[in-house]
Amino acid sequence: NDKLKIFSLTANEPLAQEVAEQVGLPLGKCSVKRFSDGEIQINIDESIRGCEVFVIQSTSNPVNDNLMELLIMLDALMRASARTINVVMPYYGYARQDRKASSREPITAKLVANLLEKAGADRVIAVDLHAPQIQGFFDIPIDHLIAEPILTEYFQSQELDDLVIVSPDHGGVTRARKMADRMKAPIAIIDKRRPRPNVAEVMNIVGNVEGKTAILIDDIIDTAGTITIAASALIESGAKEVYACCSHPVLSGPAIERINNSKIKELVITNSIELPESKQSPKIKQLSIAPLLASAIIRVFEKKSVSTLFD
Amino acid sequence: NDKLKIFSLTANEPLAQEVAEQVGLPLGKCSVKRFSDGEIQINIDESIRGCEVFVIQSTSNPVNDNLMELLIMLDALMRASARTINVVMPYYGYARQDRKASSREPITAKLVANLLEKAGADRVIAVDLHAPQIQGFFDIPIDHLIAEPILTEYFQSQELDDLVIVSPDHGGVTRARKMADRMKAPIAIIDKRRPRPNVAEVMNIVGNVEGKTAILIDDIIDTAGTITIAASALIESGAKEVYACCSHPVLSGPAIERINNSKIKELVITNSIELPESKQSPKIKQLSIAPLLASAIIRVFEKKSVSTLFD
Ligand SMILES: Nc1ncnc2c1ncn2[C@@H]1O[C@H](COP(=O)(O)O)[C@@H](O)[C@H]1O
Ligand SMILES: Nc1ncnc2c1ncn2[C@@H]1O[C@H](COP(=O)(O)O)[C@@H](O)[C@H]1O
Repeated sequence: NDKLKIFSLTANEPLAQEVAEQVGLPLGKCSVKRFSDGEIQINIDESIRGCEVFVIQSTSNPVNDNLMELLIMLDALMRASARTINVVMPYYGYARQDRKASSREPITAKLVANLLEKAGADRVIAVDLHAPQIQGFFDIPIDHLIAEPILTEYFQSQELDDLVIVSPDHGGVTRARKMADRMKAPIAIIDKRRPRPNVAEVMNIVGNVEGKTAILIDDIIDTAGTITIAASALIESGAKEVYACCSHPVLSGPAIERINNSKIKELVITNSIELPESKQSPKIKQLSIAPLLASAIIRVFEKKSVSTLFD
Repeated sequence: NDKLKIFSLTANEPLAQEVAEQVGLPLGKCSVKRFSDGEIQINIDESIRGCEVFVIQSTSNPVNDNLMELLIMLDALMRASARTINVVMPYYGYARQDRKASSREPITAKLVANLLEKAGADRVIAVDLHAPQIQGFFDIPIDHLIAEPILTEYFQSQELDDLVIVSPDHGGVTRARKMADRMKAPIAIIDKRRPRPNVAEVMNIVGNVEGKTAILIDDIIDTAGTITIAASALIESGAKEVYACCSHPVLSGPAIERINNSKIKELVITNSIELPESKQSPKIKQLSIAPLLASAIIRVFEKKSVSTLFD
């Protein structure tokens, strides 16, 4: 098929390569370079006139460079007469800045949506947005993929008994509920609260974890503070062992050290963000979302519903 | 006056500080921080409701970080109900990507204009845009300031005799002509051409430089290749001594070494881009554009013409 083209930018080339293989196409030719002063230079090295173009880019760290790369690519694709420009963002940077938490703050997740549209995006394919409301930040179609079934399938293959699915905070209960349904397991919630301002947080576990194998599920693991403290709390409350999983392994700062030193037996992540050598650990198992992205790309190209991917 | 507010972002705080002093106001309070994963966090720490806000930011290296800082600030200012948002860009990054030099290239200078507008800019004040056409990339008012009078005034104070003002390439002749008019000096042009593809460039000087003091003028000095080769060519053609000047000292890669080892007696630059310790050199003289920017801000605020600044 000569009308579908997939391009990769530099944030996560191995994932893009895998997606292209699954779709059965070579990656489109483009070059992304830096001028001496750090400015990004992009050239598209094959005709894309009239094509349905998919650009794969995670806006992971270095987020500003990766985002500008994407915006510049969109500008180039638009000027090169692509028929449609579809942005595939396995990880959507700035997603946690999705509301005004205090006065005079930006809502950077919305700004990013505006910038993508302005630069020429016709459609976005995203994975596990930190808040599903971010879909409403766009005035173009957005397909929201969920990595939870991939994580669940892995745990199912491990034949673990007497499970409890645990949300590390109040915000993630829906996600835990989804996995628990699929695994026919109960849920528990790590319930943190601050009794008064400037008083230490109290951690409480809502639900029964005694003697059970706990699986903590979150969307993003960043510095890994929340998840490793949650794991300790679970063990203290009598859980037999603790697994953890997330869609987006941001893993910044002390994350790897914390995970290695934690009570977590295994951390299961996806490849929405590339894991550099320095962040690899025997405790970490990485699963690929390439088949999910490839199916979504094919279905969008064939004008079929993407939501059926979750049946 | 309580309706005018000036904010600085992080690209060039000393310049912003100087501008605010010249205007006679303290800089507005805002905090720009980084989360552990590299995402920018901005908070505006004083009310700006109904104010005419000026944000000073050069999109110099690291250009993508500095640009995103600016865009996020614009989003925050818009949401905090600024009456007007005026972007002061002493240096406009990506200005050299102002046209499609080959097929399927982006026009990133236009993309930047689109992003600034989308994020909420109501007006832009820029200095020596690489191409004046970039003014036409905006659908909002843009004031285009010229640093050449500041450079000229410095050279006039040096009491140099028998001058010739030299453009280092064809693109800069208008700029050289302007300085030459003001200094009542003749011009010369470094005329490079490639007789055939893949054949070494031939350099020729159009105009008489024999026995004269040459002043090379350019808008941007980046890796300093062009300017230092031009200086050698001028000396070989009999120039007595060579000065150089530019508005925007990008000075990336080998620039400082090249300048130090060159025939250039003194390089005069402005502070549109902050010069880090590592780039300081006894050959370099930095002049401030703070008075120019301060006058422009006051005139815009008072709804007076900015073009009169050049009379
Ligand atoms: N990159 C980031 N790293 C850490 N915290 C962030 C980041 N972006 C936003 N936040 C903060 O995280 C909070 C939102 O996270 P959540 O409560 O999990 O939705 C907000 O208070 C933000 O200020
Ligand atoms: N940051 C940069 N560093 C070096 N060259 C650049 C940069 N941005 C654009 N260019 C190139 O410089 C040329 C434009 O410069 P000019 O001919 O002086 O207008 C174009 O061919 C661009 O590809």
